[in-house]
Amino acid sequence: MKKIKLAVVPGDGIGVEVVPRALRVLDTIADIHGGLSFEYEHFDYGCDYYLKHGDMMAADGMDRLRASDGIFLGAVGDATKVPDHISLWGLLLKIRREFELEINVRPAKVFKGIQSPLLNPKDFDLVVVRENSEGEYSSVGGRMYHGDNEIAIQNNVFSKRATKQAMDHAFKLAESRRRHVTSATKSNGIFHSMPFWDEVFKETATEYEGIDTVSQHIDALAATFVTHPERYDVIVASNLFGDVLTDIGAGIMGSIGIAPSANLNLNGKHPSMFEPVHGSAPDIVGKGIANPIGQIWTAKLLLDHHGEVAMGNLLLDTMEQVTAEGFLTPDVGGDKQTDEVVEALIRKLKS
Amino acid sequence: MKKIKLAVVPGDGIGVEVVPRALRVLDTIADIHGGLSFEYEHFDYGCDYYLKHGDMMAADGMDRLRASDGIFLGAVGDATKVPDHISLWGLLLKIRREFELEINVRPAKVFKGIQSPLLNPKDFDLVVVRENSEGEYSSVGGRMYHGDNEIAIQNNVFSKRATKQAMDHAFKLAESRRRHVTSATKSNGIFHSMPFWDEVFKETATEYEGIDTVSQHIDALAATFVTHPERYDVIVASNLFGDVLTDIGAGIMGSIGIAPSANLNLNGKHPSMFEPVHGSAPDIVGKGIANPIGQIWTAKLLLDHHGEVAMGNLLLDTMEQVTAEGFLTPDVGGDKQTDEVVEALIRKLKS
Ligand SMILES: CC(C)[C@H](C(=O)O)[C@@H](O)C(=O)O
Ligand SMILES: CC(C)[C@H](C(=O)O)[C@@H](O)C(=O)O
Repeated sequence: MKKIKLAVVPGDGIGVEVVPRALRVLDTIADIHGGLSFEYEHFDYGCDYYLKHGDMMAADGMDRLRASDGIFLGAVGDATKVPDHISLWGLLLKIRREFELEINVRPAKVFKGIQSPLLNPKDFDLVVVRENSEGEYSSVGGRMYHGDNEIAIQNNVFSKRATKQAMDHAFKLAESRRRHVTSATKSNGIFHSMPFWDEVFKETATEYEGIDTVSQHIDALAATFVTHPERYDVIVASNLFGDVLTDIGAGIMGSIGIAPSANLNLNGKHPSMFEPVHGSAPDIVGKGIANPIGQIWTAKLLLDHHGEVAMGNLLLDTMEQVTAEGFLTPDVGGDKQTDEVVEALIRKLKS
Repeated sequence: MKKIKLAVVPGDGIGVEVVPRALRVLDTIADIHGGLSFEYEHFDYGCDYYLKHGDMMAADGMDRLRASDGIFLGAVGDATKVPDHISLWGLLLKIRREFELEINVRPAKVFKGIQSPLLNPKDFDLVVVRENSEGEYSSVGGRMYHGDNEIAIQNNVFSKRATKQAMDHAFKLAESRRRHVTSATKSNGIFHSMPFWDEVFKETATEYEGIDTVSQHIDALAATFVTHPERYDVIVASNLFGDVLTDIGAGIMGSIGIAPSANLNLNGKHPSMFEPVHGSAPDIVGKGIANPIGQIWTAKLLLDHHGEVAMGNLLLDTMEQVTAEGFLTPDVGGDKQTDEVVEALIRKLKS
């Protein structure tokens, strides 16, 4: 019996609603598999935890999370309770940094039964590989002067190591897909970091055979995600550019509520973390209408990562059957509750 | 007779094709007006100029441009000839910086006759006010170490002055529109500059009455441009965020070939510059199929800026009649040549 020990962090808002449902789905998958089981340790870290304890997680939180085989996270942040930069840097971004989750993988595709906002989505199927640890997300910088003269300086830090690693990951992924890598750049406007990014991309491209490569400025790339998403296979992007592109990717799928992500540790020292792209959505908390697909598709990425690709594919296929049959929450134009979608999925998985 | 002296810089690629056509349209507008005329001084600055002279413009170029009432620019950059960061920082970005064109105004709307890639574009009509002089586009930074250890540091510099000025411009614009301003932020991930940006936005909001304000993270904002563009009126954004949003704005209109922009000098010391959002499009140069609408809509913004709002509106309305009649270049699904669209427009303006 293969046992996967998950640290479960529902976090804030709808995270608390969709995570337990996704665990039920994982248990169903384990039953179908026969030789697989999950063990869960639950952590109540998040904004409410902060309000009680003055910190987003316990003092030994990182050690306890580290003891797992993977972290299954819902959503972090609720600005009505805790300022975003505190909640995020105290939990989500802290885990990404300290556990060296330097790669964030986010697929986007036409999802059966879910209406894309595009007139002609042409069966796009792409994956963004996002550098997840540095770049524009840096705590280096500060402020100077006061009042009318104040300035804020933000340092973006790009290392060869992390940049190259993201690109290698993208090329390897492309080898198992349609063999096409697009690099998101902005070297025509951003003077130091982006020409550096381009150089590393060129260097990496010489190391892989038979992969088509394109370098495209982020502005044009973002627009082309809307006009011709079918042109893309794998896109490699900096932390910020990847952030923006993957929300657009979610947008063209039809809802941010369905988009998944995997934050990968590649050096084997820490667990990887799996979280949907959506946030905590305070506006719909408690209504029972949060879309569970993002969290469940995230569980599929977790299965893939643990070598259970057949189970992962079964899960994704079954999800698409369920959405194609009209089990849709309001964000994707339906009138079903979270639970109705989850029940339909579990029923179909079992049958 | 009111005379407007324009410095005309067609620049590279299709800039050379669309600019002269837009000047013919401006002359037609002047005829209709009766009391208005344009005088043009032409400058051949661009990548070919660089290949000949080793510089993107003449040594006295800035002084000569400064002598105009406005700069009418096509497109700058052709990476097949000159690396982008050289061509851009040597001409386009140089003018934006040295002439203190600190505000970039870029409208996007459903354009009659032009098919949006969105299933349901719901008559969106928005304007992005982009800080145009600092932020993420900075030449401050550099590199350190070599080989595998190399790092590149890019400093983003945000000043209170330029940030506040962009926001003031956005609020004033909103007063003459639907009284709604969205601020593009990313203070949940970007540690120093974006919380600063948010503070200035909050401060500015207190200075205007009866304007609805929203602060939205750039990732969600970019996605919502695709799913619900009708929710926006005026958006204020940093240099990079404005760059990305306005290309998406162009994308949801149907083509980057139709999007206009005005780079405004607010201190009266230098001319403003008017340029379409599109680039030089080397792939279609010489085919006679460049979309002239972006450049001509840009001429409308120039008319507005010089107080000729009635003429500007006449021009935009007539453009929309022409596109609605099917005079469309290939980028917007038609089979018309650049000249056929321009001739149809001039004919209709004269009638
Ligand atoms: C060409 C490039 C430097 C420029 C920019 O990023 O400002 C362009 O994309 C624009 O939006 O005008
Ligand atoms: C919440 C925020 C810090 C985060 C990010 O920007 O990385 C989110 O948008 C994401 O994409 O996971």
